[in-house]
Amino acid sequence: MVGGGQGAFIGAVHRLASRMDDQYELVAGALSSEPERAKASGLELGLRPDRAYGSFEEMARREARLKDGIEAVAIVTPNNMHFPVAKAFLKRGIHVICDKPLTANLRDAKKLAELVRESGRVFALTHNYTGYPMIRQARELVASGELGEIRLVHAEYVQDWLTTDIEKTGQKQAEWRTDPARSGVGGAVGDIGTHAYNLACFVSGIEAETLSADLSSFVAGRELDDNVQVMLRYGNGARGMLWASQVAPGNENRLVLRVHGTKAGIEWSQENPNYLWLGPLNEQKRLITRGGAGSGEAAARMTRVPPGHPEGYLEGFANIYKEAAAAILAARDGRAPDSDVMFPTVEDGVKGVAFVEACVRSSKRNAAWVTL
Amino acid sequence: MVGGGQGAFIGAVHRLASRMDDQYELVAGALSSEPERAKASGLELGLRPDRAYGSFEEMARREARLKDGIEAVAIVTPNNMHFPVAKAFLKRGIHVICDKPLTANLRDAKKLAELVRESGRVFALTHNYTGYPMIRQARELVASGELGEIRLVHAEYVQDWLTTDIEKTGQKQAEWRTDPARSGVGGAVGDIGTHAYNLACFVSGIEAETLSADLSSFVAGRELDDNVQVMLRYGNGARGMLWASQVAPGNENRLVLRVHGTKAGIEWSQENPNYLWLGPLNEQKRLITRGGAGSGEAAARMTRVPPGHPEGYLEGFANIYKEAAAAILAARDGRAPDSDVMFPTVEDGVKGVAFVEACVRSSKRNAAWVTL
Amino acid sequence: MVGGGQGAFIGAVHRLASRMDDQYELVAGALSSEPERAKASGLELGLRPDRAYGSFEEMARREARLKDGIEAVAIVTPNNMHFPVAKAFLKRGIHVICDKPLTANLRDAKKLAELVRESGRVFALTHNYTGYPMIRQARELVASGELGEIRLVHAEYVQDWLTTDIEKTGQKQAEWRTDPARSGVGGAVGDIGTHAYNLACFVSGIEAETLSADLSSFVAGRELDDNVQVMLRYGNGARGMLWASQVAPGNENRLVLRVHGTKAGIEWSQENPNYLWLGPLNEQKRLITRGGAGSGEAAARMTRVPPGHPEGYLEGFANIYKEAAAAILAARDGRAPDSDVMFPTVEDGVKGVAFVEACVRSSKRNAAWVTL
Amino acid sequence: MVGGGQGAFIGAVHRLASRMDDQYELVAGALSSEPERAKASGLELGLRPDRAYGSFEEMARREARLKDGIEAVAIVTPNNMHFPVAKAFLKRGIHVICDKPLTANLRDAKKLAELVRESGRVFALTHNYTGYPMIRQARELVASGELGEIRLVHAEYVQDWLTTDIEKTGQKQAEWRTDPARSGVGGAVGDIGTHAYNLACFVSGIEAETLSADLSSFVAGRELDDNVQVMLRYGNGARGMLWASQVAPGNENRLVLRVHGTKAGIEWSQENPNYLWLGPLNEQKRLITRGGAGSGEAAARMTRVPPGHPEGYLEGFANIYKEAAAAILAARDGRAPDSDVMFPTVEDGVKGVAFVEACVRSSKRNAAWVTL
Repeated sequence: MVGGGQGAFIGAVHRLASRMDDQYELVAGALSSEPERAKASGLELGLRPDRAYGSFEEMARREARLKDGIEAVAIVTPNNMHFPVAKAFLKRGIHVICDKPLTANLRDAKKLAELVRESGRVFALTHNYTGYPMIRQARELVASGELGEIRLVHAEYVQDWLTTDIEKTGQKQAEWRTDPARSGVGGAVGDIGTHAYNLACFVSGIEAETLSADLSSFVAGRELDDNVQVMLRYGNGARGMLWASQVAPGNENRLVLRVHGTKAGIEWSQENPNYLWLGPLNEQKRLITRGGAGSGEAAARMTRVPPGHPEGYLEGFANIYKEAAAAILAARDGRAPDSDVMFPTVEDGVKGVAFVEACVRSSKRNAAWVTL
Repeated sequence: MVGGGQGAFIGAVHRLASRMDDQYELVAGALSSEPERAKASGLELGLRPDRAYGSFEEMARREARLKDGIEAVAIVTPNNMHFPVAKAFLKRGIHVICDKPLTANLRDAKKLAELVRESGRVFALTHNYTGYPMIRQARELVASGELGEIRLVHAEYVQDWLTTDIEKTGQKQAEWRTDPARSGVGGAVGDIGTHAYNLACFVSGIEAETLSADLSSFVAGRELDDNVQVMLRYGNGARGMLWASQVAPGNENRLVLRVHGTKAGIEWSQENPNYLWLGPLNEQKRLITRGGAGSGEAAARMTRVPPGHPEGYLEGFANIYKEAAAAILAARDGRAPDSDVMFPTVEDGVKGVAFVEACVRSSKRNAAWVTL
Repeated sequence: MVGGGQGAFIGAVHRLASRMDDQYELVAGALSSEPERAKASGLELGLRPDRAYGSFEEMARREARLKDGIEAVAIVTPNNMHFPVAKAFLKRGIHVICDKPLTANLRDAKKLAELVRESGRVFALTHNYTGYPMIRQARELVASGELGEIRLVHAEYVQDWLTTDIEKTGQKQAEWRTDPARSGVGGAVGDIGTHAYNLACFVSGIEAETLSADLSSFVAGRELDDNVQVMLRYGNGARGMLWASQVAPGNENRLVLRVHGTKAGIEWSQENPNYLWLGPLNEQKRLITRGGAGSGEAAARMTRVPPGHPEGYLEGFANIYKEAAAAILAARDGRAPDSDVMFPTVEDGVKGVAFVEACVRSSKRNAAWVTL
Repeated sequence: MVGGGQGAFIGAVHRLASRMDDQYELVAGALSSEPERAKASGLELGLRPDRAYGSFEEMARREARLKDGIEAVAIVTPNNMHFPVAKAFLKRGIHVICDKPLTANLRDAKKLAELVRESGRVFALTHNYTGYPMIRQARELVASGELGEIRLVHAEYVQDWLTTDIEKTGQKQAEWRTDPARSGVGGAVGDIGTHAYNLACFVSGIEAETLSADLSSFVAGRELDDNVQVMLRYGNGARGMLWASQVAPGNENRLVLRVHGTKAGIEWSQENPNYLWLGPLNEQKRLITRGGAGSGEAAARMTRVPPGHPEGYLEGFANIYKEAAAAILAARDGRAPDSDVMFPTVEDGVKGVAFVEACVRSSKRNAAWVTL
């Protein structure tokens, strides 16, 4: 693991997720950009002293040489480091599991995609919400034609934790997320807008061709956006709206997706993720529960406990690790993973960064339509 | 009453709403544009034969001359008739309660506003959702500063009844709503978008200065929009989104309003209207119930039964009639109504039609920003 | 109307409900047991002075003699007066619409039932919750066999307004409801327990044969029960539980009914009454909406506005008046009402009082099983 | 681990829960009562062949002698085996984590409690629902006096998976749960009723003194109860109801707890466990979210991810393992665990079996009141 040391949040989530199905073991890490903290964090997590590295370069170099060196690395640093770290490991033939957004800018994203292709290594991007079983179910419903032709895709991801300028109070999570040097050009749009857009595409099976975005920084002195409103035009003529905000009091992680087609609509909410509403035209609405009646194969593969026993964020996150493990195992054997193995790839990451840049570009031009 | 005869829907709602508080009596009507049907409908409703008129002109003329002629008329025709009918009664000194949108175009709307001002008569527009007690409560919370400065206003009104081309099957409601000659330039945007926009302004206390709208007609052969997506910029720097759709399967009358300020956010949904969510920053979310703890004066005035006994659409609608009655009684006495009497006025109607025309204008220019 | 004068609550509800469909006109009343208040209340409501009576006896006598005397009387007094008032009007051939519970004791209830049978008059008891469209829908689902054989019937009616001894603060509603002289032997069990039991029987189509009840008076000094817990054994072997409480903080009028059979279960809640959950075994749960897909004839008869526009307590209450009007019109013509006309009868009232007395009897015997 | 081999359900849950916080390692097992299957299951899970035992006796004997033998054993067999297995390990000084109910009868339960006391070993019973953070929060609210004096405790655990006789179709979970030889005297009452009762006591801080229970076996030929209704009288005068059912179509794992005191009420539901309703008398209801405002220390200790990111069944289960680990670590050091460490103990287990036996005894005597 690179990043995720003392004071970090998402690193612990990755470690927990990787442990869930007993397919990964944490044996080495460069857990901070500060060598001292990196080592201390490593020891705290029980790494052997010689594998608690002070820098990711050292780690990549050394691990590549070890006989039982790591097979895969998890990158959980701020956005700006994703590219150099991934590069360092990929070029040494180590698989990568990387947090999102892929990189701080589109140029790096495309380079990284090229590197991945050349390396032949597995690269999984933790757009973790695609790991929720009912999101798999939703995608399956759309793909099977249950919704008819898709007309409308509405996604929102609404939070309130940046309503005031807590980045000035020493809150580390807020600091780097509002800092262009570490986050890139996007604030809320990169941090959570990309999740919403990724989810919209994953489920609907279509992608936006053009968009019109209005980004705001409501908090005085904040350099990056903390609220983003987007209208989208999808390839097949479908229309979309997307709202991501970190300044909407009363919201924690309200990620909601609604997709409507000619025959039915669906709705899903991250805060109670074990349920999926299906509203077929002129029929009663149905509540599909994870593992319950009408919940199909795609969801079942991602499910660990019976219906009515809720699974949550960590299980969804772990599903990305589980899928990546399947791909890594296939790579070991020199074969392609099974066709039902699905995780966000470097290409999805490129699309996410393209989305961020398109939003920023559009917003600077007074929400003009721009091509993705 | 003008309009609302056999086969109509909203006329019966108006009659019921007017009856709720025993302040109106239906004594005369021109209930259809077809004289025969008009008379038959009138007799069916128990009107005296001589007051079951064949046309609104006749009705206006005759009633104005009667010693006990009507004091107020309810106009429940398709949109295009609102203007001529209102004019006929206003100029004879008869108060008007009129369905929305105000008129089929902005020119007529402004003329009508002028006529109302000249007449000195009461003119109430049935943007009925502003009659819901918890909407009054929401407005009071915003006005009292509980939400801080308003930053975000999100409104949606989502239906599914026009998902297919039922206007070609003889469904009367669908026929006139998809017909530009009777509905004006707006389809969904006029029929329900105006409700959402009116509600957003009523509660937030602010108005949009510019907007960018993308209207769609998803159903082949439909001339008017059946889906509208709008981004709005409010006067104080607030941002808004508005979505109105009649082609989203699984939705009946999903009118939802969310307003977020610097200190708190609120959320309200028409389909379960007796509740209002209040989310103060860094505090627990609270559920304010109609008539329950924390429900204030503004809601109490509009309430008939104790908390926990739901009130619905008809009571909300009746509240507009009740408020109009208060204004009419004040007019009788030659005085202004009490300051807490509130109902949508002809000016609100002008704003609504301006909203429709702005949306259409923007959409024709590829969702360019236009001034309201 | 008898009762319902100044300071009363339910009288206004009855008047509003009666007005809803334009089938009743209030022309006479003895609105209080105190002659002065009775007359003042009558004048306030616009009654002619000679028909604003000082006592119900006078009213019954006089109205029976008038050529255009009342056809039906609404009795909205405390429970102990239901019997004498109903008797006075019935024996003069006047139809009765009476609040629940039917009487203060079972002896009177049975006498009253006898009187009704002899009179041939219409007698409707306002167990108003049976007027909710989705309750009609629920009953229809059970009757049609959708649930299979009924095994479980769970009803609860939970409030919090008597959590403290507000009857000592001059709150009139609390005063008479906690006073055995006016309420009879049952407190919460009579006031709301009867509603829950009536609803359970109405929907499930079965009746309890025996029950075991545990009544409590949690508030010091309160003579009547404020909490009641009951286990019930139904005729066909089904089992039931019933909980009625007025001392459960955080509850307004939480009346919830759940019925489970061999093939499906249903759930309904009064506080959001336009929805009915249907859970067929091994199928997805469905949400039936009032007037929406799957909502049948029985609900449609009781419905005024389209799906997605909520109806509430007053509309449900008005449905009882509407059904009674149908019966009264049929009686005018000397014929039986149509078979789909349904309202709670004097027999239902007898069952309700029998339920109250059985609960009290069981509770006194340490919750022994008693026969209904 | 003892039990939990091929075809089992809860074993996998235990393994996952134990892995969550990286405090346990699975190194030995006797995973089935059939030696062949036990060994095969062990190898499948990656156990070393010499520690994949054919019987629990062998495992206890051998592990006790190994230098690095197991420190703790998880018992996940059918109920009837809990006692002998626990005994075998306890007497060899090995800590025990055991599934519920504790034993198949009260006699064994008491003996086991005695054995635990004598052994000085840690014994944790996986009444896993007490591990949910918002259940800890609820308990803390009660303990701190926020609810005032407790008056009412309502618990229900409703399922539908035994609505038909699936135990005759070869479904293993159904087979042993409906078999008195393996489950003991209680069916639904033991399987899920004990969970509900345990939760009620854990949160309310009080215990029932007497109860009256009505057990049913709705499915023809089923020997054990599949539905249980209970009225309870608590020590301080509080009253309770408890309903556990496995024959209520439309319910998955609907475990709901409501506690009402003189000052406030709370409500929690297992199927969406990250929320807790708090309804203070005469104040607005509040929604406390896991980790959000108003969520205190007790919940925070049991929390892994930020508010708005749902935790689920596995995290709650893991919390029991985590608390047991804290106790085991303390035992290593020869000290008592910290005072905030809480997990269901063998004494809770005795109470659970006493509850089951009391219910069965009461039901056989026509729901007479029996002492717990």
